[in-house]
Amino acid sequence: MTTRATSELSADLGPIDPPVRLLMGPGPITAYPRVLQAMSAQLVGQYDPFMTTTMNEVQALYREVFVTSNDATLVVDGTARAGIEAALVSLITPGDRVLVPRFGRFGQLLVEIAERCGAQVHAIDVEWGRAFDAETIEAAIKAVRPKLLAIVHGDTSTTIAQPLDELGAICREYDVLFYCDVTASIAGNRLLTDEWGIDAVSAGLQKCLGGPSGSAPVTLSPRAVEVIESRKSIEAGIRDPDSVVRENRVQSNYFDLGQILDYWGPKRLNHHTEATTMLYGARECARVLLDEGLDNCLSRHRVHGEAMLAGVQGLGLSAFGDLRYKMTNVVGVQIPEGVHGEAVRADLLTDYGIEIGTSFGPLHGRIWRIGTMGYNARRDAVLTTLTSLESVLRRHGVKVPVGGGSDAAIHHYISAKP
Amino acid sequence: MTTRATSELSADLGPIDPPVRLLMGPGPITAYPRVLQAMSAQLVGQYDPFMTTTMNEVQALYREVFVTSNDATLVVDGTARAGIEAALVSLITPGDRVLVPRFGRFGQLLVEIAERCGAQVHAIDVEWGRAFDAETIEAAIKAVRPKLLAIVHGDTSTTIAQPLDELGAICREYDVLFYCDVTASIAGNRLLTDEWGIDAVSAGLQKCLGGPSGSAPVTLSPRAVEVIESRKSIEAGIRDPDSVVRENRVQSNYFDLGQILDYWGPKRLNHHTEATTMLYGARECARVLLDEGLDNCLSRHRVHGEAMLAGVQGLGLSAFGDLRYKMTNVVGVQIPEGVHGEAVRADLLTDYGIEIGTSFGPLHGRIWRIGTMGYNARRDAVLTTLTSLESVLRRHGVKVPVGGGSDAAIHHYISAKP
Repeated sequence: MTTRATSELSADLGPIDPPVRLLMGPGPITAYPRVLQAMSAQLVGQYDPFMTTTMNEVQALYREVFVTSNDATLVVDGTARAGIEAALVSLITPGDRVLVPRFGRFGQLLVEIAERCGAQVHAIDVEWGRAFDAETIEAAIKAVRPKLLAIVHGDTSTTIAQPLDELGAICREYDVLFYCDVTASIAGNRLLTDEWGIDAVSAGLQKCLGGPSGSAPVTLSPRAVEVIESRKSIEAGIRDPDSVVRENRVQSNYFDLGQILDYWGPKRLNHHTEATTMLYGARECARVLLDEGLDNCLSRHRVHGEAMLAGVQGLGLSAFGDLRYKMTNVVGVQIPEGVHGEAVRADLLTDYGIEIGTSFGPLHGRIWRIGTMGYNARRDAVLTTLTSLESVLRRHGVKVPVGGGSDAAIHHYISAKP
Repeated sequence: MTTRATSELSADLGPIDPPVRLLMGPGPITAYPRVLQAMSAQLVGQYDPFMTTTMNEVQALYREVFVTSNDATLVVDGTARAGIEAALVSLITPGDRVLVPRFGRFGQLLVEIAERCGAQVHAIDVEWGRAFDAETIEAAIKAVRPKLLAIVHGDTSTTIAQPLDELGAICREYDVLFYCDVTASIAGNRLLTDEWGIDAVSAGLQKCLGGPSGSAPVTLSPRAVEVIESRKSIEAGIRDPDSVVRENRVQSNYFDLGQILDYWGPKRLNHHTEATTMLYGARECARVLLDEGLDNCLSRHRVHGEAMLAGVQGLGLSAFGDLRYKMTNVVGVQIPEGVHGEAVRADLLTDYGIEIGTSFGPLHGRIWRIGTMGYNARRDAVLTTLTSLESVLRRHGVKVPVGGGSDAAIHHYISAKP
């Protein structure tokens, strides 16, 4: 064997050793320790009975998370954005009309992805900070006659949760497929996939599910599966020599949900090599949620989100947007006149180890976004953030009531007690 | 708060608790414990200074892994297949001619993905178990005049490593971009990205790098970056209102390397939310490799791969393919006449906790594939596998020399000692 010196770079860089952070932004947030522990479990083979059993378990767990009986429930190996693209590219054939009601940055992203899938995209807008009413969406559906309605549930860029409960029936009436991105809302805001008639849902782990980015749970209704199956073309090397390659096959191999379903299903056809560690993480995220109970977890997000809202208002700050439609798990906080928002964020991070969020597009420099998600939907996390923010704001010359944030939050906790 | 009972499913499923496995197949293989430990580190925010520093470190580490000075070196958040698709979809504009010399299953996959990217794909073939000579590829380039040559380095389906060292110069001569999938070969077989003139390389963690699937290291030459930059269209919500959306923009958002480079580069433009835990894992995989030393790691794979080859031959079994071009880290073993290959594999897994691989396409049912990769390129792993295989084969009625496998392997270890 050669005995060449080892890399200097590698010797310089020690093992990964992150600083202590309390992640109170719009996500990613501090992961549940249980999830990280699960992710240190050793690997098994791709078709090990333990592996396929674990995949089946993850499917069953996410059926409960999504409140669905959809057989076609699985995780896509990539970030939340990978789940969005998998759903859209698998449902959209180039030339299809797609309607996107857009109320924030992630609605813009749906437009972007749908366009790249070759769709004729029709977007409608409301002012950032507001939600659509169902009538507006219905009118657009009647005008556009899309194949697919694509919408975000909770758009963290504006902190608004779009009501979805009436949209499924409208989509059924006009024979429209209904896709929803629930990355930022899932586990913190009520989602009833089947009851609301949603055909395709994609999510991510890094918000209220309390895991790392890198795995995207997806569920598909039988109607969505039918569309996907009608386009399915098994890849070369796996397909029977005499099987067809369809003209309208999905323009991505990695995101072809027809093939991914055959990998997750009883055929177990080879596709990608499942990202085992992310799978373990996704499984534990769902277990943490379901061990707590879905309703309890939703209530917890509501209580701590309300406490944070009360707290920032108690500091004399204004919350952004139409609060009737505020997501439970994030609040937009208007940056006081004359305050340098980024400097406040930097001080919070440097001096207190607390991260709060900046914002996008028209809200950039106007609001901070403070999350109370997953592991950090906790009383101590809320109160620590509020007292630290108070201290930093005062240092930045803002007149804030002494203890105004934590007093208001504690008051909310007392009054919110059952 | 409600106190609804927690999920029965969740209560039934305990924490993840994989059985003990020695993964001696073609990958994924048992991960280095150091890598799994690194992956249990807590998360930080997406733009935390620690996060961006870690991303920079990962870039620097993978420049050493790929033996390149390419600035454009990063990881794509998905499995090895995601890295392939990111490279191809970012380089291929629909209508482009692509040449794929195909010598196994993963060459078929390159054809499949390139076709879905809209390429006019021209494939050339050799019999499975052989490699191409450079002249054959040059002749095909002269005939096809492709924009891109796409080839696999080590195709585990046949255990063959394609020599690459002459191809870069040929590609330069005919102004062809040169892409290579090194998922199965990296860290076990010599790769010199710059010296061999490769423009785009993608990999995965789950072979000789000894990590889990789910992160795909990629490196791009300045020539490849130029092609990608010429198509770059920053997405809606991030781009300046007056910036262009190009006609030839990449048909995927998730895999648009132009945008991904802007996220990894000094602009730090928002794209996906980096999969932090996978990033930590990718970082530690590179550190394990570089701490050992690239040359030492290559030698280790060679020695243990040769010992495994000697061992299976010592058991009276025949190795598959042209051994002059055998990958160091996997051997194809012809299943003896009359033996049920899958039953042997099942017994090895059930009784010994050892996984060896099945095979694809024309080799299905004809060969097993036995890997010696990453953490499992170890003497005890080789010898345990050989003695276990001997025992199972005997139980299946194969006449095998007593101790023939381990004796031959040990003999090789003694003679291979410096």
